Amino acid sequence: MSRACYAELLKLLREAATFSSVAELLAWDQETTMPPRAGAFRAEAKGLISATAHRRATDPRVGELIAACEADAEISGDPLAAANLREIRRDHDRAVRLPVELIAEISETDSRALEAWRAAREASDYALFLPWMEKQIALNRRKAECWGAPEGGDLYDALLEDFEPGTTGAELASVFGPLRAALTPLVEALAASPHGPSREPFRVAVPVGKQKRFNRELLRHLGFDTRAGRMDVSTHPFSTSLGPADTRITSRYTRDGFLDSLGTTLHETGHALYEQGLPKEEHFGLPLGQPMGLGIHESQSRLWENHVGRSRAFCEWVLPRLQRAFGSALRSRTVDELYGAVNEVRPNLIRVESDEATYHAHIVLRFDLERAMILDHLRPADLPAAWNERVRRDLGLDVPNDRVGCMQDVHWSMGAFGYFPTYTLGSLYAAQLWEALRGAVPDVDARLARGEFDAVLDWLRENVHAHGRRWPARELCRRVTGGALSHEPLMRHLEGKLRPLYRIDVPARK
Amino acid sequence: MSRACYAELLKLLREAATFSSVAELLAWDQETTMPPRAGAFRAEAKGLISATAHRRATDPRVGELIAACEADAEISGDPLAAANLREIRRDHDRAVRLPVELIAEISETDSRALEAWRAAREASDYALFLPWMEKQIALNRRKAECWGAPEGGDLYDALLEDFEPGTTGAELASVFGPLRAALTPLVEALAASPHGPSREPFRVAVPVGKQKRFNRELLRHLGFDTRAGRMDVSTHPFSTSLGPADTRITSRYTRDGFLDSLGTTLHETGHALYEQGLPKEEHFGLPLGQPMGLGIHESQSRLWENHVGRSRAFCEWVLPRLQRAFGSALRSRTVDELYGAVNEVRPNLIRVESDEATYHAHIVLRFDLERAMILDHLRPADLPAAWNERVRRDLGLDVPNDRVGCMQDVHWSMGAFGYFPTYTLGSLYAAQLWEALRGAVPDVDARLARGEFDAVLDWLRENVHAHGRRWPARELCRRVTGGALSHEPLMRHLEGKLRPLYRIDVPARK
Repeated sequence: MSRACYAELLKLLREAATFSSVAELLAWDQETTMPPRAGAFRAEAKGLISATAHRRATDPRVGELIAACEADAEISGDPLAAANLREIRRDHDRAVRLPVELIAEISETDSRALEAWRAAREASDYALFLPWMEKQIALNRRKAECWGAPEGGDLYDALLEDFEPGTTGAELASVFGPLRAALTPLVEALAASPHGPSREPFRVAVPVGKQKRFNRELLRHLGFDTRAGRMDVSTHPFSTSLGPADTRITSRYTRDGFLDSLGTTLHETGHALYEQGLPKEEHFGLPLGQPMGLGIHESQSRLWENHVGRSRAFCEWVLPRLQRAFGSALRSRTVDELYGAVNEVRPNLIRVESDEATYHAHIVLRFDLERAMILDHLRPADLPAAWNERVRRDLGLDVPNDRVGCMQDVHWSMGAFGYFPTYTLGSLYAAQLWEALRGAVPDVDARLARGEFDAVLDWLRENVHAHGRRWPARELCRRVTGGALSHEPLMRHLEGKLRPLYRIDVPARK
Repeated sequence: MSRACYAELLKLLREAATFSSVAELLAWDQETTMPPRAGAFRAEAKGLISATAHRRATDPRVGELIAACEADAEISGDPLAAANLREIRRDHDRAVRLPVELIAEISETDSRALEAWRAAREASDYALFLPWMEKQIALNRRKAECWGAPEGGDLYDALLEDFEPGTTGAELASVFGPLRAALTPLVEALAASPHGPSREPFRVAVPVGKQKRFNRELLRHLGFDTRAGRMDVSTHPFSTSLGPADTRITSRYTRDGFLDSLGTTLHETGHALYEQGLPKEEHFGLPLGQPMGLGIHESQSRLWENHVGRSRAFCEWVLPRLQRAFGSALRSRTVDELYGAVNEVRPNLIRVESDEATYHAHIVLRFDLERAMILDHLRPADLPAAWNERVRRDLGLDVPNDRVGCMQDVHWSMGAFGYFPTYTLGSLYAAQLWEALRGAVPDVDARLARGEFDAVLDWLRENVHAHGRRWPARELCRRVTGGALSHEPLMRHLEGKLRPLYRIDVPARK
């Protein structure tokens, strides 16, 4: 592509992306490093940099250049440039459709609603938060109206586009429904089994310094390039990318929770390996260098956390290393015990403390309820009752208060509707990708047991990471796995692992 | 000030300063945290943010608003607003006088010359660096011509304005000359004394973790607000300010160099206490909230490092604490030994490894030589010979090669001419301020010996920190100490301390 309009467009977008990456550094620093009193000015600085990034991306010149490129046969004839251009057009149209006043109102509401949520959650008083919930839903509807529903779709679909481009609520419902139908009886059967494994034998005291060293060593072993990234500590673990060669993750540690930190590190490393695998040197700031939505991003973290990290083969490899690093407390533990411990299923009121299986009951109910609220089928005032009813039915638990019920998560207070389903999408894509990967690397278990992770990473790099936003997630899934998104690979994975562990007969499934 | 033009001006300048503070965070992160491969993109991001800050500060609208404010009697009648406005005008005029092409050429030359300097220093081959030295001098002359020499002054004065506003080379020469004349015989006499103290007894192994904890505790004790700042580790210690309540310093550690780290922490804490004492909540991004030049900034670091940290009283307070923290290796050490150790004088070829006294021989020779080069009295090709000659005369040392000679410092390679003298200015102002402080707080020694640092900090806050850039350094000095800048307080401090320590008779001085 030597066309001047394309070159100028790329330059402007690279600048906008550079401002965004600086905003990411401001946020990373705030979570890991910043002294407490610096918060107010940091908010101001983040606002200024983000607004500058937005202004650059929505500059009228960008619109002119996109139109000029679209009219140029040479550019639209180049498949990579055409893919970039299609996504640039999509981002630009969405960005310019939001009026500046609405953006400002959203931004202010987000921070005030977040504060209100904190206070209401603390007091476990949903009534305090209700006006903000109503306001956030109203604002999200307005936002969705500006963007416009996709053809044949609704306002929820317009919101979903922000997190999972090319996917609709109806499509999600058609996969989440069967998932829920299959999951509920499995969870019930597991809960009824007297033979479940336990995490308890691994709740041993390990100094945090030793855990940090172990996790740092582990992420290098998985393939994380520490010359192009780092790992720190924060209250809420996260992964972020600050530029072409600067991917940072965090984990958190408690003295007797090394298994939790290990899982967190595997999860965040999965996100980071995706970021490090994107072709950013070539396409920084452009769709081809960017991750394909949250679902695929989450699929990468869950593939490493659940399909690698919770496999028997990984337990074989990691246990002797844990024993060497952490000493006597683990000396008599066996691989079977570790494999059981990381696969314990125990319904929990709290989503982020849930296991690999019951987690999805949490997500499906959030998806159903947020979609109903956005589409005006459920009044925000009726949320707690609807929530508690679903938790009873799907998880068999009673919700004692809204603090551990419908106010446990931060997402809605920050105005994020359409975000939750991407967590389960991540697990669905991970399971589907893992089946394809097993086909391509038949001896993957033997490799994991020897601590050889490169075959897994190479396969993901080639089949997922290298493509950036070239294809929507659905299309990527079909190209790589040969099939449409389905609940079946995830259920096969869970049933195949959990029924033997809990000594439950495998029923005949359709 | 309720005038709309003043309010709008302050808003624009606050935004420009916010961009600058973000550039500072990018730099801080690069020095302390950033993964190595992220360097190229970081340079791009820093360039973009700095250019944005510059464009904001030099926006034509800023010039219009300054003129409108200057024409407004209400604003010029308010002493604080008038002081802000005077300095805003000064900064603006200097900034807009540099053509954009020159700024770009300077920026590119700086990074290429820095690279060339690294390679030339490594090879100890000045000839490799000479073309870049010539280029930097030519560029600095062009820059100085754009700014214009102050009335009755020369091009070097124009450069000096960037680091030490309101001071001229002639003025510096009139103080540095007598300083050199008094210092050289003192250094000779100290070198001839057989009774000098030694740092050796304190070169004991202390784990770096313990040192870090001690230094962190120390800076809190000195009055550093850790809720509005932090201390980290970097190769070259520095202090930086990232906003109204975010001042960060770094130190560095070696296993057997805890005294060095202690001195570094005192020094950087001095810088940080100044930043934390500036009225930034009220005047962020405005001259009244900014430090008054590098000389005063350095005076704060040196006052804490040398007048507090190298005093007998501080040694009395700190030794038992060191013994408690670092254990047996220091058990039999005495206060006299510590006081001697921190005041050892030993001419060194390397500026940054020099002691409190011989350090100034380094600075005065750099000042003389850089001024001569800028004013075309010394050809850059003749620098090594001139340098070596001066080191022989003023420090009694032979320079074996340019690596430890005229290529030891980074400053000239980065195009900073007029920076070096501010180091000695710092010591001169520190000594002069310290005499005034002793007058106001007569029992300061007793307080230091008890570890009560608040009287020192309060006096500095009230007399120096609170004023920001309200008065030029010379004027501030006169207001606070009652006298003009002079070499005498520093010489009184050095002679009064070092002659007894080295058992040299005090000669009659004029």
